[in-house]
Amino acid sequence: MRAHARAIFRASLVAANPEASVERALRRLPLDRYRRIFVVGAGKASAAMARASERVLGRRVTAGLINTKDGHLAPLKRIVLNECSHPVPDERGVEGARRIMELARGAEAGDLVLCLISGGGSALLPAPAEGITLELKQETTRLLLACGATIHEINAVRKHLSAIKGGQLARLAAPASVVALLLSDVIGDPLDVIGSGPTAPDEATFGSAWAVVVKYGLEGKVPAAVRTRLLAGVAGQEAETPKAGDACFRRVKNLIVGSNRLAVQAAAAKAKELGYRPLVLSTTIDGETREIAAMHCAIAREVLATGRPAKAPVCLISGGETTVTIRGDGLGGRNQEFALAAALQIQGMAGVLAFSAGTDGTDGPTDAAGAMADGATTEKAAALGLNAAALLANNDSYRFFEPLGDLIMTGPTGTNVMDVRLLLVRRY
Amino acid sequence: MRAHARAIFRASLVAANPEASVERALRRLPLDRYRRIFVVGAGKASAAMARASERVLGRRVTAGLINTKDGHLAPLKRIVLNECSHPVPDERGVEGARRIMELARGAEAGDLVLCLISGGGSALLPAPAEGITLELKQETTRLLLACGATIHEINAVRKHLSAIKGGQLARLAAPASVVALLLSDVIGDPLDVIGSGPTAPDEATFGSAWAVVVKYGLEGKVPAAVRTRLLAGVAGQEAETPKAGDACFRRVKNLIVGSNRLAVQAAAAKAKELGYRPLVLSTTIDGETREIAAMHCAIAREVLATGRPAKAPVCLISGGETTVTIRGDGLGGRNQEFALAAALQIQGMAGVLAFSAGTDGTDGPTDAAGAMADGATTEKAAALGLNAAALLANNDSYRFFEPLGDLIMTGPTGTNVMDVRLLLVRRY
Repeated sequence: MRAHARAIFRASLVAANPEASVERALRRLPLDRYRRIFVVGAGKASAAMARASERVLGRRVTAGLINTKDGHLAPLKRIVLNECSHPVPDERGVEGARRIMELARGAEAGDLVLCLISGGGSALLPAPAEGITLELKQETTRLLLACGATIHEINAVRKHLSAIKGGQLARLAAPASVVALLLSDVIGDPLDVIGSGPTAPDEATFGSAWAVVVKYGLEGKVPAAVRTRLLAGVAGQEAETPKAGDACFRRVKNLIVGSNRLAVQAAAAKAKELGYRPLVLSTTIDGETREIAAMHCAIAREVLATGRPAKAPVCLISGGETTVTIRGDGLGGRNQEFALAAALQIQGMAGVLAFSAGTDGTDGPTDAAGAMADGATTEKAAALGLNAAALLANNDSYRFFEPLGDLIMTGPTGTNVMDVRLLLVRRY
Repeated sequence: MRAHARAIFRASLVAANPEASVERALRRLPLDRYRRIFVVGAGKASAAMARASERVLGRRVTAGLINTKDGHLAPLKRIVLNECSHPVPDERGVEGARRIMELARGAEAGDLVLCLISGGGSALLPAPAEGITLELKQETTRLLLACGATIHEINAVRKHLSAIKGGQLARLAAPASVVALLLSDVIGDPLDVIGSGPTAPDEATFGSAWAVVVKYGLEGKVPAAVRTRLLAGVAGQEAETPKAGDACFRRVKNLIVGSNRLAVQAAAAKAKELGYRPLVLSTTIDGETREIAAMHCAIAREVLATGRPAKAPVCLISGGETTVTIRGDGLGGRNQEFALAAALQIQGMAGVLAFSAGTDGTDGPTDAAGAMADGATTEKAAALGLNAAALLANNDSYRFFEPLGDLIMTGPTGTNVMDVRLLLVRRY
């Protein structure tokens, strides 16, 4: 079953591979109909995505520039690779974004702007609006975070301090065609959230952005330039971000080429091939890791006891990204903690294997992508002097799985579509 | 959808009704083959179960006695109803248990001892072993609880301080036949846990019971009489509880006549009849209520987004009993908290209804059994000045649902097979 779980997860990684995803998507596009093709983009996987674009498009690439994270490189011939800082944006990022905006502005009717966005794309595409600086945006974000503003509220404000986010890149490119290929690392794949939606209609307005500032009593605390811009926007003196139905989106296509959902779908197909009945529970799971693990195991238990919700052999699959409330000072990540919590839930049970791993190949501050456990795991660990409950209480999942050899080690995968969790359940 | 949810829950209550369950089970038994029939039992629903037995058996009941909770009555003709204290056992309970043991001991080959057990059956059937008193058992339980012993560990000890639990009632009744009809309020329906298993083989031994005392360093702290008995048992000077395979179980049948699993199954059948695809997730769900709610809603979200794990219209069903970590001083129960947490998760979504209710008709210290919510609930509440997030933070779910009219009020149902949770999902 361990080998099966590994194979199923590997199928997810293949589906989420940035090069393969972009290549698949491009081969389905009617590329002949465009006169010139400009390639732009930002994100941790954007270099790999650009490389795949060059492979398919070859000399059809007119020009291009990609903002990528320091060290996240790929050999490119025609598209310029601009390394910049992540997660804190820097002036190299601003300069790259400026040149991307120029390329988009230069595109004409009949041209294609191919936009490659992946995780980290928001921080890697910084373009403060006129009168705003990187520092002012960061200061505003800090203030909002400290008040407990939601990420949705923070994004409403940030898009209105940007010259490129919230659909503005699409507006710059019009009347050229825009195809955005998106590798989503956001739960539910909302187009306006992935990379802060440079090519997607914005639901927020200057009005709703200012309402967020007011809600948290920050009218007098946000930087003066920020206040000035937002109020000018409310008064109709600044250009609003483009909205759904606006003419500038007429020739815009946003395509999710890689996502947790697609990775989970690939896992389901592989599980089926291996003889399991795949049951995808959800790809939008968040919440406290050990509770989520308990509920997964409760479903596995029911499969064995009553054949519901499906008859064994079953592969329960879920995606998304859980959280860990830190209680101790141990070493681990959410995926390893999931496996450890599951180990306690399924101890003594035959025929159940729990598996959880991050598609980016890293889990917390460790060199593992995740871990797996079965009904004998806690006993094996006890023989090595490892107390599962105590290590879980200390968030010390890495030190539990490392000696057992049950860590999942993939190395960096070059992609990130969140996590994949599996529970294999067979009758014994 | 509210009416559908109510109807589905009602089907669960019918399936868990103690009178109907006992009647169904008795009508399937070959009652003609027994010479005399003695009816014994304990639990909050045992009076109703006894009444159903009298209805089926009539004058075939030779004699009988039932321990029931104060006020939990039913009109009986042949079976004596013995009211006693719950949840803290009292001498009336001890006297009733003594007479039940006498009845069992008096049964002979060819006779049937019909044993009716329901929730509360453990506290309502107190029979301290020789040399042990109620107070000594309670003191021992208190000490173990204070050390963080699991309920499994505590039961191992308690059964070895009892003269009736852990299969000992079945041993007293042998060579008579024993049929135990069990209304289970325990997750997973383990026969040795329901009512502390008076007719089920015991897995624990004097050795494992004493190991629990040692594990928590209580050798010098448990009452002297308890220590003496357990050590005598370890030395083989006290009779061990009967074990699986022992001759005394040869004519013993333990039948689960009502349980969360059966209630959930009835809900699934009703949901199907109403046009929903029923999907039973699990009947063994515990864990922190709001996290469990989030995962249920994540599955509902996936149904709407991708038609997985099943195509809408779907009725997700789960059972078991979650917990609530008290953070505030509000009024509510785990079922109402589930509905409130779900209300926040599904706000703005069309076509989803979340429902959670306790089959005993009460939820926490309130007069409601539970509550329900849909995508418009938080907005409706806001119009009444009710902040869903703030009330959830204060565990104040009753005050949220009461003004909305979304409480589920059944009154006492006379049964308890834990909770039933539903998520109805339809395309709109």
